[in-house]
Amino acid sequence: MLSKPFDGFMACEKDPREAHTILFGAPFDSTTSFRPGTRFGSAAIRQESYGLETYSPYQDKDLEDTAVCDLGDLELCFGDPARALDAIQDQADAILAEGKRPFLIGGEHLVTLGAFRAAVRKYPDLHVIHFDAHADLREDYLGTPLSHACVLRRCWELVGDGRIFQFGIRSGTREEFRWAQDHVTTHKFDLDGLETALTAIGDKPVYFTVDLDVLDPSVFPGTGTPEPEGVSFSALRQAVTLVCSRANVVACDVNELSPHYDPTGVSTAVACKVIREMLLALPPR
Amino acid sequence: MLSKPFDGFMACEKDPREAHTILFGAPFDSTTSFRPGTRFGSAAIRQESYGLETYSPYQDKDLEDTAVCDLGDLELCFGDPARALDAIQDQADAILAEGKRPFLIGGEHLVTLGAFRAAVRKYPDLHVIHFDAHADLREDYLGTPLSHACVLRRCWELVGDGRIFQFGIRSGTREEFRWAQDHVTTHKFDLDGLETALTAIGDKPVYFTVDLDVLDPSVFPGTGTPEPEGVSFSALRQAVTLVCSRANVVACDVNELSPHYDPTGVSTAVACKVIREMLLALPPR
Amino acid sequence: MLSKPFDGFMACEKDPREAHTILFGAPFDSTTSFRPGTRFGSAAIRQESYGLETYSPYQDKDLEDTAVCDLGDLELCFGDPARALDAIQDQADAILAEGKRPFLIGGEHLVTLGAFRAAVRKYPDLHVIHFDAHADLREDYLGTPLSHACVLRRCWELVGDGRIFQFGIRSGTREEFRWAQDHVTTHKFDLDGLETALTAIGDKPVYFTVDLDVLDPSVFPGTGTPEPEGVSFSALRQAVTLVCSRANVVACDVNELSPHYDPTGVSTAVACKVIREMLLALPPR
Amino acid sequence: MLSKPFDGFMACEKDPREAHTILFGAPFDSTTSFRPGTRFGSAAIRQESYGLETYSPYQDKDLEDTAVCDLGDLELCFGDPARALDAIQDQADAILAEGKRPFLIGGEHLVTLGAFRAAVRKYPDLHVIHFDAHADLREDYLGTPLSHACVLRRCWELVGDGRIFQFGIRSGTREEFRWAQDHVTTHKFDLDGLETALTAIGDKPVYFTVDLDVLDPSVFPGTGTPEPEGVSFSALRQAVTLVCSRANVVACDVNELSPHYDPTGVSTAVACKVIREMLLALPPR
Amino acid sequence: MLSKPFDGFMACEKDPREAHTILFGAPFDSTTSFRPGTRFGSAAIRQESYGLETYSPYQDKDLEDTAVCDLGDLELCFGDPARALDAIQDQADAILAEGKRPFLIGGEHLVTLGAFRAAVRKYPDLHVIHFDAHADLREDYLGTPLSHACVLRRCWELVGDGRIFQFGIRSGTREEFRWAQDHVTTHKFDLDGLETALTAIGDKPVYFTVDLDVLDPSVFPGTGTPEPEGVSFSALRQAVTLVCSRANVVACDVNELSPHYDPTGVSTAVACKVIREMLLALPPR
Amino acid sequence: MLSKPFDGFMACEKDPREAHTILFGAPFDSTTSFRPGTRFGSAAIRQESYGLETYSPYQDKDLEDTAVCDLGDLELCFGDPARALDAIQDQADAILAEGKRPFLIGGEHLVTLGAFRAAVRKYPDLHVIHFDAHADLREDYLGTPLSHACVLRRCWELVGDGRIFQFGIRSGTREEFRWAQDHVTTHKFDLDGLETALTAIGDKPVYFTVDLDVLDPSVFPGTGTPEPEGVSFSALRQAVTLVCSRANVVACDVNELSPHYDPTGVSTAVACKVIREMLLALPPR
Repeated sequence: MLSKPFDGFMACEKDPREAHTILFGAPFDSTTSFRPGTRFGSAAIRQESYGLETYSPYQDKDLEDTAVCDLGDLELCFGDPARALDAIQDQADAILAEGKRPFLIGGEHLVTLGAFRAAVRKYPDLHVIHFDAHADLREDYLGTPLSHACVLRRCWELVGDGRIFQFGIRSGTREEFRWAQDHVTTHKFDLDGLETALTAIGDKPVYFTVDLDVLDPSVFPGTGTPEPEGVSFSALRQAVTLVCSRANVVACDVNELSPHYDPTGVSTAVACKVIREMLLALPPR
Repeated sequence: MLSKPFDGFMACEKDPREAHTILFGAPFDSTTSFRPGTRFGSAAIRQESYGLETYSPYQDKDLEDTAVCDLGDLELCFGDPARALDAIQDQADAILAEGKRPFLIGGEHLVTLGAFRAAVRKYPDLHVIHFDAHADLREDYLGTPLSHACVLRRCWELVGDGRIFQFGIRSGTREEFRWAQDHVTTHKFDLDGLETALTAIGDKPVYFTVDLDVLDPSVFPGTGTPEPEGVSFSALRQAVTLVCSRANVVACDVNELSPHYDPTGVSTAVACKVIREMLLALPPR
Repeated sequence: MLSKPFDGFMACEKDPREAHTILFGAPFDSTTSFRPGTRFGSAAIRQESYGLETYSPYQDKDLEDTAVCDLGDLELCFGDPARALDAIQDQADAILAEGKRPFLIGGEHLVTLGAFRAAVRKYPDLHVIHFDAHADLREDYLGTPLSHACVLRRCWELVGDGRIFQFGIRSGTREEFRWAQDHVTTHKFDLDGLETALTAIGDKPVYFTVDLDVLDPSVFPGTGTPEPEGVSFSALRQAVTLVCSRANVVACDVNELSPHYDPTGVSTAVACKVIREMLLALPPR
Repeated sequence: MLSKPFDGFMACEKDPREAHTILFGAPFDSTTSFRPGTRFGSAAIRQESYGLETYSPYQDKDLEDTAVCDLGDLELCFGDPARALDAIQDQADAILAEGKRPFLIGGEHLVTLGAFRAAVRKYPDLHVIHFDAHADLREDYLGTPLSHACVLRRCWELVGDGRIFQFGIRSGTREEFRWAQDHVTTHKFDLDGLETALTAIGDKPVYFTVDLDVLDPSVFPGTGTPEPEGVSFSALRQAVTLVCSRANVVACDVNELSPHYDPTGVSTAVACKVIREMLLALPPR
Repeated sequence: MLSKPFDGFMACEKDPREAHTILFGAPFDSTTSFRPGTRFGSAAIRQESYGLETYSPYQDKDLEDTAVCDLGDLELCFGDPARALDAIQDQADAILAEGKRPFLIGGEHLVTLGAFRAAVRKYPDLHVIHFDAHADLREDYLGTPLSHACVLRRCWELVGDGRIFQFGIRSGTREEFRWAQDHVTTHKFDLDGLETALTAIGDKPVYFTVDLDVLDPSVFPGTGTPEPEGVSFSALRQAVTLVCSRANVVACDVNELSPHYDPTGVSTAVACKVIREMLLALPPR
Repeated sequence: MLSKPFDGFMACEKDPREAHTILFGAPFDSTTSFRPGTRFGSAAIRQESYGLETYSPYQDKDLEDTAVCDLGDLELCFGDPARALDAIQDQADAILAEGKRPFLIGGEHLVTLGAFRAAVRKYPDLHVIHFDAHADLREDYLGTPLSHACVLRRCWELVGDGRIFQFGIRSGTREEFRWAQDHVTTHKFDLDGLETALTAIGDKPVYFTVDLDVLDPSVFPGTGTPEPEGVSFSALRQAVTLVCSRANVVACDVNELSPHYDPTGVSTAVACKVIREMLLALPPR
């Protein structure tokens, strides 16, 4: 009788053995160069998810019918990104080892690297679909290679040219944009071209990483580095639904919510709705 | 000489006997399931209305020329919704009895039920035009029938099938959407279809209820349950102008501003401008 | 391997069967007459408890060594206080039935009544130690008997004269202060007289209820009805330690944190530290 | 039946002809050198006054029994301090002409000069009791003589040496402190010496001006220029009660609340309680 | 070795003798009728500019390659608008005298008048392109001619009919809109018609003034008088790029950011990006 | 003529060659385990310092007469604490090499280690006076030795037993308090015992490090880990004045202001006043 109620992401309380997708949080921000606080993102998302319904009128599906389990947050070490990434990789490895799909909630974008390492180890032909305002392709940031501004460059080092498809990119150094032309596929400013990319990728395994700052700051102000002129919620919702339902997504993440810069709570609501729509669109594995 | 200046909604200081529309506030929130605070909505709207002009370049009309009177806020009892609804109904009854149009400012959406009861008593063939993000059609909410999540269901019990026209609905349980198909007219996601509905209603008496969360949270973050992917301000402004100028609106309300979740004040400015445009569009009775 | 980490109040993860004290939250506010939001209190307390250490240098004790279990929050119905109180009473009944001490975290002060009813049923000679800025002794509030402004009056109806000892009271109607003179023991303004009261009560069973607004608003701004000139944190810490270690506390609560009025987070930190010191001082049952 | 409820300061709704004290607000800030926003002070005070009780357990008196009337706010011109001061002086003149006591709520401290001019015209032997963190004795501020940093200097020009008694002063230029030694009585840092000053003033007419930033910023953060190490609420409450009950206060003001720097609302609560205690202590004229 | 790093607007650290455009800030707000705080605008813009990149993917240009110098903020007198305008005019005069283009960052919109006076003295055939939500064409505001609500009227007095082209205007009194028809070219609601105006102006000298509240409040909430239904960021970015690259802009300003009403920081990010795009588009003189 | 005004800490604009004390900022937080944001501390302190006067009535001294120079902020790398500490150490080395006293403004408390390393290299018999709420004596934090929770332990490794005097400590693990007994002098809870420590230290060189969270959170809420029941502002002001005027302070720092958790700005005002009093008390070297 004296048992504790579930307090993970709404309705994601299926038995982990029967779930096809496993949520876990990486409450880590340490390399963020501008405004910190994404460490609070995953906890805020869980708590505020109860402001949404489990049912989506867009997809006519309900999370209650979806085999997802939320394992809560990892305990991560600040000030030592390498150690934190190892812990994230371990958790993703464990999930993949059981034949399930890891769904990581950040945290700063660097956390992607941990889950990505696990995924690329299991799926050597891994492709990347990347939604973001920022290219994240720097060689290093003020001397540090493990920075959220470098994360896709680190991923590229593991998969090489032609595997990474970026969308919505509207900020970067001149060098990043130039480098990108030779190594990755970068769609600037919006999410157009997604259909073409999905066709090109086919049924290859995909790591799908969503930096929520791809959204316009009016829609999603609660992030470390808001960049005006982003995509609309509607565009993002349709695009994530498309990727999750059509690509062979073997691992994914949603990151860069910084709830302390979100006094109205709307950014957290946006993050929850994006995650709900992704979870509803992801097929069983 | 020592007299108190007017501090109601800007320019709504006509003599109540000569006004065709009477504003009053219902500073009540008690059943809100998520974030409370709409009790502060009507007071914030009055105070911030002075940041707007009384003149509308959209309609080329001026509130100074409009016969409206603001009676201020009721004093309502928290924790006892039935008692609060009775007080709201009494005030609306009194206004209707003098042949005037009550314009209620919430407060949570449940307050609609008080004014609606008064209106349906006077106008048995009352129809409803309902703008909202949420269907509000639950039979009960955690066992309570008097909840803001059930308010349109309670209204339906008083008028029956075919009288309620909902627009902008993008959140609800699967059950609500299914129930709606048999009993009310629900336009999902946007305000399209309004012209058709107005034609169908003709000159029947209309209760017009605007839950401001029909707006996108980027436009209107200050509400209890922000739901992404709402309508734009421009769409709402045009729609409320259309309803107020074309339908036979016998009573109306605007609700669900929660100003403590609006640190920038823009939600309150939005509420004020919606109300100004409605007041300018409503004809004399 | 894929198991969820504990996310209750820090270190309160003992097996409920071996715990002597059981924490649970009542995230309820519906009757609050002024600023709402205590519904978010218990969740904020859990989340922010990790900013504190488990060790207290005041008592030289550690929560790691203390047999406490946190069961998380009840799911309560808004807008129907009677129903919510029943659910709280049921949970407290269950805890008391297993010979353990319920420790309720509010929520508005009305939640006390639920746990109190359970306690008085088991301990008919129950006494009350009440720390608060407000007397909470109204017969009703705007017609409603179940209001946070009436909660001690409702408790008095169950135990009668001479059982309630109030401290720190600095706000109330003239009628409340007059009524109090004949029925309860009210120490105005501060916590003086506590030793005398503890001696008078002896080893009788005690319900200890702490409305955190007894603190000065400079120390604890995050509450619905801040009342200037309250007690210092040091005075409160010493007083709660004294009550918990010397009285026969059979049930207790801490309430009225409203974290959305606490943008700096210090009120939540204060609530966490008060609870830590109480838990460390409460003896095994 | 359709009448507007009172919305001035709680319980200050007596007929102005029968009131001995007349509240009015001067929502003006234009010369503030640091953080603006005191223009919102008087409106916030009225609105939040309902969070307090009308009864004071300190004085065992009730505002319901007190003959005070609140006339609301003046409409003042920004950017032209001379014009705004004229309007304030006119209102104070009118109140004094009816044999009543003006009680001005600011606004920035410069507003004092308007009411002071009216009072000194009627009472040429006017004395000043001034509570403040800042000396406000500059000859000019960046070239402007009408600045909140100069207001007491402007008052001194109207009454001369020996009439102004300052308390709590802990900030100023070296020149202000030196000048003060020859012209006014300045008690630095706290409110000590008040009894002596009251005795010296005897029954001479007194203008009592309270800049709320005399309080410590922990108690009263919501002000333009917070200055650490101020007086406690308890000290201020006792001091204002003493001045109002013992001196011949012919006019008074409370100013410098800037509610937009008061997200918790405690500064406004403090301002309300100070005003309540002053109103209860002021005798009929 | 012990030298201070640059802390002006990012990358605007060229030697002033070699710069073609000179930034300076006018941290002044004193006449603002509604919410103050634009005095903090220019400092916030400098500090937050480091959250942007110096490179623009829209124009494929980099601020590092642009000859701009930021001179920091003037020290201005509050409460005396005439004196503040003189100081702004002096600084703009000095910049123009050296053959450079002044780029003023406000502050409230009244600051425009200072720089405008300098520009019109040097360029008698000066034209004005004005982006704003508000017409700013009042003869006076509550009796004061030097108000931010009158600034374009004051400019008109210096250049006469046919020289001022307004865009985005959606708020004003009926009188302002009527007066405008005879004296200025007013494009209501959006930025359409800009191409036509640029063609009409040809290579005449242009003062370009951007009141950022022309943007929709969802994009730019941090301003004194938010007016719903403004233009999108994309529309504004394209329009300012067009004006700066095609018109003969001899002086310009960006104003009305009030960062204390911008808790998320997105308004400041928007202001920074507008300024970056303008600086990149402005040709050498 | 076109020169940039000073924008460092008020009045600290002396020529670095003639200054005895050199301010510099280390805007770094990367290892903070709880709430981040101290990276914004030094910039906020500079900007808000203009809300204070340069003159102190406590010491009757003026910063205008004090030979201090502010060099602004270092540019530091996030996510790599070792690299950031090296940069801080280099700056402190350079200042010490010129015979001046470095005064570091944090940032998180870990920054102390950079300046401390420079100081201990020059002064091998360096002693430490440490004001803090937290012992900061952990061997490591979640595996990382370079954490703000370990900084005094790292300092101890460089100087050994008997050199560190801690005051105000009220939080730590049981292990930290036990370890401290054998290695450092820890005064719990308040600043008592300072006189004795100063006598024991005599004229030995002292590194003085002030973690502002030693203050009570009511006085200083804007910090990462607020810990209730701290010292008063008055106690801290007197203590820092005593240390700076009596000990042989060769280097010092003030840290842990996190301004984004300080919406009222009072924490920043407190930090500014502490720094002003320290600068006024520090003698020429």
